[in-house]
Amino acid sequence: MEKDRRTVATLKDVARLANVHPATVSRALDPAKSDLVNAETRARILQVAQDVGYRVNSFAQSLRKNISGMVGVVVADVANPFLPPLLRGVEQVLRSEGRLLLISETHDDRDTLREILDNFVSRRLDAIILSAAHLDDGDIVAGLATQIPVVLAVRTVSGGRFPTVTHDDYLGGQLAARHLVDLGHRRLAQLRGPQGVSSFAGRAQGFESVMATTTARDVSTAEAATAPTAEEGYRLACELLEGGGDRPTAIFAHNDLMAVGAVDAINQLGLNCPRDISVVGYNDSPLTSHVNPPLTTVRLPGLELGRRAATLALAQIAGEDVPPDTLEKFPPELVIRASSAAPLDES
Amino acid sequence: MEKDRRTVATLKDVARLANVHPATVSRALDPAKSDLVNAETRARILQVAQDVGYRVNSFAQSLRKNISGMVGVVVADVANPFLPPLLRGVEQVLRSEGRLLLISETHDDRDTLREILDNFVSRRLDAIILSAAHLDDGDIVAGLATQIPVVLAVRTVSGGRFPTVTHDDYLGGQLAARHLVDLGHRRLAQLRGPQGVSSFAGRAQGFESVMATTTARDVSTAEAATAPTAEEGYRLACELLEGGGDRPTAIFAHNDLMAVGAVDAINQLGLNCPRDISVVGYNDSPLTSHVNPPLTTVRLPGLELGRRAATLALAQIAGEDVPPDTLEKFPPELVIRASSAAPLDES
Repeated sequence: MEKDRRTVATLKDVARLANVHPATVSRALDPAKSDLVNAETRARILQVAQDVGYRVNSFAQSLRKNISGMVGVVVADVANPFLPPLLRGVEQVLRSEGRLLLISETHDDRDTLREILDNFVSRRLDAIILSAAHLDDGDIVAGLATQIPVVLAVRTVSGGRFPTVTHDDYLGGQLAARHLVDLGHRRLAQLRGPQGVSSFAGRAQGFESVMATTTARDVSTAEAATAPTAEEGYRLACELLEGGGDRPTAIFAHNDLMAVGAVDAINQLGLNCPRDISVVGYNDSPLTSHVNPPLTTVRLPGLELGRRAATLALAQIAGEDVPPDTLEKFPPELVIRASSAAPLDES
Repeated sequence: MEKDRRTVATLKDVARLANVHPATVSRALDPAKSDLVNAETRARILQVAQDVGYRVNSFAQSLRKNISGMVGVVVADVANPFLPPLLRGVEQVLRSEGRLLLISETHDDRDTLREILDNFVSRRLDAIILSAAHLDDGDIVAGLATQIPVVLAVRTVSGGRFPTVTHDDYLGGQLAARHLVDLGHRRLAQLRGPQGVSSFAGRAQGFESVMATTTARDVSTAEAATAPTAEEGYRLACELLEGGGDRPTAIFAHNDLMAVGAVDAINQLGLNCPRDISVVGYNDSPLTSHVNPPLTTVRLPGLELGRRAATLALAQIAGEDVPPDTLEKFPPELVIRASSAAPLDES
């Protein structure tokens, strides 16, 4: 592309062509001041501006108003299946308010998180929606919140008080455990996702809270996945099932990828899901209805959560009072498919 | 969050505390001019700036340099499974150059596309990576390219000459058709994605190019999906299989979601995939290895494509010569799984 193809009309160009002073153009194009310019002149200026494709420089405007018109969203992993509906919800709300969505990815690395937040703050974004925090990142978030409106989304931090919208992971863990207990299972285990992340810690606690109130036994191993992947689900399920202890008749995996990894392990051992071992996943990722067997899972209202996170960010930008201890939990929903069934043997 | 918690130090604050003129602070903090300030003063200013948490206002800098430090990516659908690796590739390259990624979603709506591009241009983004174009959006892209560096990614437009990186969809369609013909199929059909999008049009043409050189028959119906979804794949497959014509023994669906919809239709009719009808999808989306049956599909190098799109955007920003007819096609790869097999009856 040759550079001379790209010509951007300036305010001075418009002034020259409309035969007025540049300050008049500036007033005519500013909604707050345009009534200071007489109607005929304003019409002529608008026509010239349109003809030459002149655009008000948003940077200059932002600088004057000290807003950037942008909200940053920080995620751990753009490939996470809960993310598309959340991003869609955030973007819908931002765009309806004329703001744009910036996105950056941490890969769950703390230094990268710091670097991204520094970058976002130094660019004077209007607000940050942080969906990549670990439980022990409270110090980072606290420093951030003194400089810019922050909303925590999906993942929470320990001990901090920041406006937060999250899935009710505790309830999700309970739904999974309750479903399996109600089917008649008496030996259950969970495959834990990384416990430094609130989402997985909440699921574990919800599961355990149900187990504590039943006569069914929790035969989980203590180990957690290093990452919530199919490979880690397979590895943890192999250790659980080959460990020599009482084999569970039902497994709750902390996400769908770990669940399909667990099904692989079950098949590998010559067993069948759900005949020998039921499996429940988490997220209702795309295609979970078509995996073999179709996966019972926990569905999250990502779109609604994204919309609410953006709304709380905009409220803070507008100077509304959003109490720092705002904590909204969106309830998940159990989706029952073929991977969970009553146990063969209720021993 | 109370507003008084958020205090942003200004350049004047730093000047007052360091007991120097604001212009000296400005020079000391500008890498291009800091050597104009004597070393001791510069050290004092940097210390004060650090103590009070002063940040150079990137907006003001951008305004002077006429760069925003941001590149916009326009996508049709944030939930598209090819997107996460592409976005990751773009972001990796942008971040390594200190730039940020803005993202916006068109939902394949032309008015929304125009609105987003207007917004991006008026905010003086450095460049736009457009992955949401329809074949007939050449006029929009042409207008855009006069104002801002543009790279087309994944989707191309008719008749335009703009730097483009895309998957080789023609080759992908050929790989799918060639695989099925080589298995011995003699009656094949494709389920077309929306033909106004270059990706699907290219797959169709690649498929047809192989069919034209074999004695196998193409029994496809002419209709294309209105959207590349499982529902549309199911609908088109039902029409194909119940249409009364010669039933195909192999189906090439233009993406994985349409392919699982086709498998649903096959099951619904009491037939079996792959025994009665083989199915090939496209994209190698997450979990396609675990659907029933595991799906033969075409895998795309999204990360590499994203990295290259960002590199071409940065090259244009840097004023390097990127010819407008740059067209780089990334070859896809066939992934063979259980959904495709030799036909029972080679009639």
